[in-house]
Amino acid sequence: MGMIGGGQGAFIGGVHRMAAALDGKIELVCGAFSSNPERSKASGRELFIAPERVYPDFQTMIETEKNLPEDVRMDLVSIVTPNHVHYAPSMMALDYGFHVICDKPLAFNLEESYSLQEKVKETGLIFALTHNYTGYPMVKEAKHQIASGQLGEIKKVVVEYAQGWLSSFLEGTDQKQAAWRTDPSKSGIAGAMGDIGTHAENLAEYITGSRIKSLCADIGIVVKGRLLDDDGNVLIHLENGARGILFASQISAGEENNLCIKVYGERGGLEWNQMRPNDLILKWPDQPKQILRTGVGNLSESTQAHTRIPAGHPEGYIEAFANIYRNVAECVSARIENRTVNPLYEDFPKVEDGVRGMEFIYKVIDSGKSDQKWVKL
Amino acid sequence: MGMIGGGQGAFIGGVHRMAAALDGKIELVCGAFSSNPERSKASGRELFIAPERVYPDFQTMIETEKNLPEDVRMDLVSIVTPNHVHYAPSMMALDYGFHVICDKPLAFNLEESYSLQEKVKETGLIFALTHNYTGYPMVKEAKHQIASGQLGEIKKVVVEYAQGWLSSFLEGTDQKQAAWRTDPSKSGIAGAMGDIGTHAENLAEYITGSRIKSLCADIGIVVKGRLLDDDGNVLIHLENGARGILFASQISAGEENNLCIKVYGERGGLEWNQMRPNDLILKWPDQPKQILRTGVGNLSESTQAHTRIPAGHPEGYIEAFANIYRNVAECVSARIENRTVNPLYEDFPKVEDGVRGMEFIYKVIDSGKSDQKWVKL
Amino acid sequence: MGMIGGGQGAFIGGVHRMAAALDGKIELVCGAFSSNPERSKASGRELFIAPERVYPDFQTMIETEKNLPEDVRMDLVSIVTPNHVHYAPSMMALDYGFHVICDKPLAFNLEESYSLQEKVKETGLIFALTHNYTGYPMVKEAKHQIASGQLGEIKKVVVEYAQGWLSSFLEGTDQKQAAWRTDPSKSGIAGAMGDIGTHAENLAEYITGSRIKSLCADIGIVVKGRLLDDDGNVLIHLENGARGILFASQISAGEENNLCIKVYGERGGLEWNQMRPNDLILKWPDQPKQILRTGVGNLSESTQAHTRIPAGHPEGYIEAFANIYRNVAECVSARIENRTVNPLYEDFPKVEDGVRGMEFIYKVIDSGKSDQKWVKL
Amino acid sequence: MGMIGGGQGAFIGGVHRMAAALDGKIELVCGAFSSNPERSKASGRELFIAPERVYPDFQTMIETEKNLPEDVRMDLVSIVTPNHVHYAPSMMALDYGFHVICDKPLAFNLEESYSLQEKVKETGLIFALTHNYTGYPMVKEAKHQIASGQLGEIKKVVVEYAQGWLSSFLEGTDQKQAAWRTDPSKSGIAGAMGDIGTHAENLAEYITGSRIKSLCADIGIVVKGRLLDDDGNVLIHLENGARGILFASQISAGEENNLCIKVYGERGGLEWNQMRPNDLILKWPDQPKQILRTGVGNLSESTQAHTRIPAGHPEGYIEAFANIYRNVAECVSARIENRTVNPLYEDFPKVEDGVRGMEFIYKVIDSGKSDQKWVKL
Repeated sequence: MGMIGGGQGAFIGGVHRMAAALDGKIELVCGAFSSNPERSKASGRELFIAPERVYPDFQTMIETEKNLPEDVRMDLVSIVTPNHVHYAPSMMALDYGFHVICDKPLAFNLEESYSLQEKVKETGLIFALTHNYTGYPMVKEAKHQIASGQLGEIKKVVVEYAQGWLSSFLEGTDQKQAAWRTDPSKSGIAGAMGDIGTHAENLAEYITGSRIKSLCADIGIVVKGRLLDDDGNVLIHLENGARGILFASQISAGEENNLCIKVYGERGGLEWNQMRPNDLILKWPDQPKQILRTGVGNLSESTQAHTRIPAGHPEGYIEAFANIYRNVAECVSARIENRTVNPLYEDFPKVEDGVRGMEFIYKVIDSGKSDQKWVKL
Repeated sequence: MGMIGGGQGAFIGGVHRMAAALDGKIELVCGAFSSNPERSKASGRELFIAPERVYPDFQTMIETEKNLPEDVRMDLVSIVTPNHVHYAPSMMALDYGFHVICDKPLAFNLEESYSLQEKVKETGLIFALTHNYTGYPMVKEAKHQIASGQLGEIKKVVVEYAQGWLSSFLEGTDQKQAAWRTDPSKSGIAGAMGDIGTHAENLAEYITGSRIKSLCADIGIVVKGRLLDDDGNVLIHLENGARGILFASQISAGEENNLCIKVYGERGGLEWNQMRPNDLILKWPDQPKQILRTGVGNLSESTQAHTRIPAGHPEGYIEAFANIYRNVAECVSARIENRTVNPLYEDFPKVEDGVRGMEFIYKVIDSGKSDQKWVKL
Repeated sequence: MGMIGGGQGAFIGGVHRMAAALDGKIELVCGAFSSNPERSKASGRELFIAPERVYPDFQTMIETEKNLPEDVRMDLVSIVTPNHVHYAPSMMALDYGFHVICDKPLAFNLEESYSLQEKVKETGLIFALTHNYTGYPMVKEAKHQIASGQLGEIKKVVVEYAQGWLSSFLEGTDQKQAAWRTDPSKSGIAGAMGDIGTHAENLAEYITGSRIKSLCADIGIVVKGRLLDDDGNVLIHLENGARGILFASQISAGEENNLCIKVYGERGGLEWNQMRPNDLILKWPDQPKQILRTGVGNLSESTQAHTRIPAGHPEGYIEAFANIYRNVAECVSARIENRTVNPLYEDFPKVEDGVRGMEFIYKVIDSGKSDQKWVKL
Repeated sequence: MGMIGGGQGAFIGGVHRMAAALDGKIELVCGAFSSNPERSKASGRELFIAPERVYPDFQTMIETEKNLPEDVRMDLVSIVTPNHVHYAPSMMALDYGFHVICDKPLAFNLEESYSLQEKVKETGLIFALTHNYTGYPMVKEAKHQIASGQLGEIKKVVVEYAQGWLSSFLEGTDQKQAAWRTDPSKSGIAGAMGDIGTHAENLAEYITGSRIKSLCADIGIVVKGRLLDDDGNVLIHLENGARGILFASQISAGEENNLCIKVYGERGGLEWNQMRPNDLILKWPDQPKQILRTGVGNLSESTQAHTRIPAGHPEGYIEAFANIYRNVAECVSARIENRTVNPLYEDFPKVEDGVRGMEFIYKVIDSGKSDQKWVKL
């Protein structure tokens, strides 16, 4: 695997590397870790990458690697740059025949998204998007419980993603994460809605198996001087008729990374919270509440396939992230070895999820500016 | 105290009686417990009320008691009937000079509410409404934390009231509670929004000290055949500029009585959950999360005045309810004894809160039917 | 009901009064609230007791009440004094034909306990001891789960009672509670073991239905200058062969009233915590963990009979305490009305439980001083 | 790194590999994965190890690797075999100049332990033992809070390690984990006490900074037919005068991997639970309870150095385990590069901890058989 972005000082690059390394199926062999060639080199050194395979920019990396012998060159590109640098390397990697894992959101704008989707279809290559929260085993289990009808027809969804790290004007300091995420020239048209709102949207649609049909958004900029939304509340209607709420906030002071979903059907409800990820709570009108736990009892095949260690040994964020990498690695291997892959491993977010996310971002921002109540998605 | 309603088979009447009895300051001396005189008599017998003071209807009770000697007759009327029987007994009790404690919502419709408000002003009598959730000590503490500026300026409020008991067509059985609460001729224009949405509204305004200025509601009837709303999601704006979400649902299958509020300010956030009422969680961006507990440390004077037993001895719903009764009893005693009352005891929901709640009900139901995004409250 | 003790400044007296009042079945009609006649009078006034029935001492109360007409005089005496004043009023009340509710532990020493047990047997009167924790509905449910074999044969018990309020030399201040509880002339031979260790013992034996057969105790005085034990750890063996741990501590700084029991059988385990009393956790090797909740689903008849309000409306300490009073009231009424009583109401701690508790205190203190490993109980 | 053991079907081998891989500092280059050469080969293939470096046995591996060029051969041996195969490969690896990471307990018996300790001293090589629970960042924080005096002098420790996976006769099936762990010829003299009791002992001594001075144990075999202890309760005294309880159980049906420690000092208490590892609860007599969280606020330097990702992104078991590998890797690199190492990285369990653990095992098993109350450790 080669990596684009993720040099010194980055957050998500390190996560991708740990996720890729965890299962011993992917080796990081090259990278263009920074738009600054010196920083790229330094980063490569720290990562024990052979110096000749630390590249000054992604174009050089993709071209050079393409010319290496098949058994040497990278199979896969991991793109962990800010949003405005998702499109170009993705397109080039695909053009050169490399599979891609890209951080979310898919692209800087909607046009890029459609174009990327087209390219993926055209090349037939694997393109994965790290909507990592759907990588958690108990999210798989939640999806399974609903898909298998345990809750009956779904009637209500509440998905909440509360963070507090942007409750002050952090972009006024030299915090790199805050700087680009609140900068429209790097982040795109949305702040919180793009950064975490799309995770909430992706999670809700993944778990319920139903898509948001229309929405009504109240989008705000709470911190003075900020250029992009940092707090938004959204009423949603799903295609299956369910009603719901989605909110994403980065000014909920004191919250860490509080992504939580509750789904209610005719016969029962479920709740999953990212900060206690190994629990899935099932609630029943006339039966005791149940807490399903990774590693305990008859969980779905998919839940089990995305769990590494026995019950009571907590798995977390990196492991869920690694599930995407592991699945992609299995799919890539299967292609290389020209064999079919266990369908369980084909369960990772793809370019369609990315396009969906970008459409959500555009509609939710539109709705926030509109006096009209409902906007179709 | 005399009671109107609350005969055999009722739920809330028993709660009012336990709340009134708990602190030994109020004695139940008479009642018109049912619109059915026989049932009223039977109920009175069970409650050890002198048979001559068990009345066939509230009119007889109020008139008869008025004519008893001052040291014998009731001081106070407790009205625990369904919504459509709040207005008439309240008006009559006030007209005859009795203080009133009435269950919420204030009345069957807005007109009655205004008329009652007028009457209370005119008579100068005490009129309390049992928005009981604000009776919890840690709700007092939450209010105090915000009022004293600990969280900084308030930016976001999320108040959620999820129940699941109406997730099936329970009114099709002989469940009395479900029957009248879903019947427009008894409940008024709203179902869930009137029954529990007003509690959420009252709690949010009480804790934040700011009022809802405008709202945008998505109100639905989920269970087929039902005549009133059973699920509603509402975007809200507060007068102080904060943005928020309020939802009330009685079809969240598997939820018990899950009333929860989260408030975020510039400097920190707080969370209180009715089902773990002795905890108040304070969340800070750069400090450890704190769990304030009834009976531990330097809580506000009001918190302490509404707590009965030491830390670790859980107090619950009845105790919070009893705080309203205790406060009213203190205020009534002070009037009888012609002395001033400790202002801490004047903190209970009053007719204004009831009018506010009715206005909320009307606006939220209006908004639910409207294509317009924002409705002013 | 008449009360002995519980005057101004007391803690447990108020709890007993609230517990007695809650269900409207018991009226407090007289009292000897303090060994100081002036304070007794003042307390009586506050409690709205007719002045002629506020007595200067318990002897006067019992004698005078005995001579009142049957339909006027008290039926029942509630004794809420420190340990060294349990025996005399209990004996006298029984001798005069009054039923008794007495705070725990049963008496000042073992001899008094046996003598009281004899007296109760002799008179045939009702004698209840307020081991209030077994009054919680979910403790009833725990007992039911085990008795009905859900967990299989019981193999292990862990019962822990941690408080921190005596982690400093509080008896050196003017805190009344600390003063008498650490004073051997008032408390008896034990401090923490008598005050809370007996609750742990009672709870463990009640829930498991098996008695402690032998024990090995490590008993200490942690705070310098203290005269009685404030921390003790005990290995226990139950009669049914199960092994376990019991600890009681009042120097676990920062703990409130953390009484918790875990029981493990061949097929599953359960956990109940006094500070979240409406939850009963059932744990299974190959099934999801279950959280049984008061008011939800098919709980035992006894659990339901000791629950007052619907699911999600938290009941707490006072309600559990009130369950003992309610049950005693039912039993007393049945005797007065010469009818049989529902056996569910006969479930409250009796003199035998008190004797058992005293034996436990003596053996655990003995063991603490002994070099011998196991002491029989 | 080379690995001994951990072939197909093993549990802990996979954990060690993930832990080693996570931070990109250690590469698995060779192994003797099984005592069965065929299985070793197959395992090596799955792990993408060059076939010529997959060895039939550890002796061949150590000898062969020793003869490879310095920049090719392994630096470090990871030993993940059952207890009876810890000693021989550890001794040989040290003799051949390789650093060692070994799973706990240190050895099969006490003699081996002392001999290994001697060898480590003699060779001056790094020897790490995977008492992985002390690798958690919030365990570091707990240690720091106590060492820096926040709780005052420590008075009480309660450490509990409850599992339920051996609550039936699992060794009667073909479960490999159960088979060797309950077999005295592979596990040594202890079952649960060796397998998990030593973790509890290590954790308690690490966090408190004080050692167990004497103990009184009740050790049992609960499941019929089992050959080694599966449940034990132990009274402990620490060198600093604190009193405590330690228990380890594998028959607590329904428990997963419930390792929990509570420590109480004069001024406050703390609690940490392995199954919610990112929380450290601090309890204060007169202040709100605090929940310290990884990534939030001013945690100790060591806590921060053992945390990888921001607050609210849960880290778990593998990350804690990886902290040991990362620290060892840093120490090994420092030696190779002949530089000093940040003392934060020298914090991992060493041979002394292993000897200590073996002494604990011997004494606790002794005490379990003894009629004498206290046994010195």
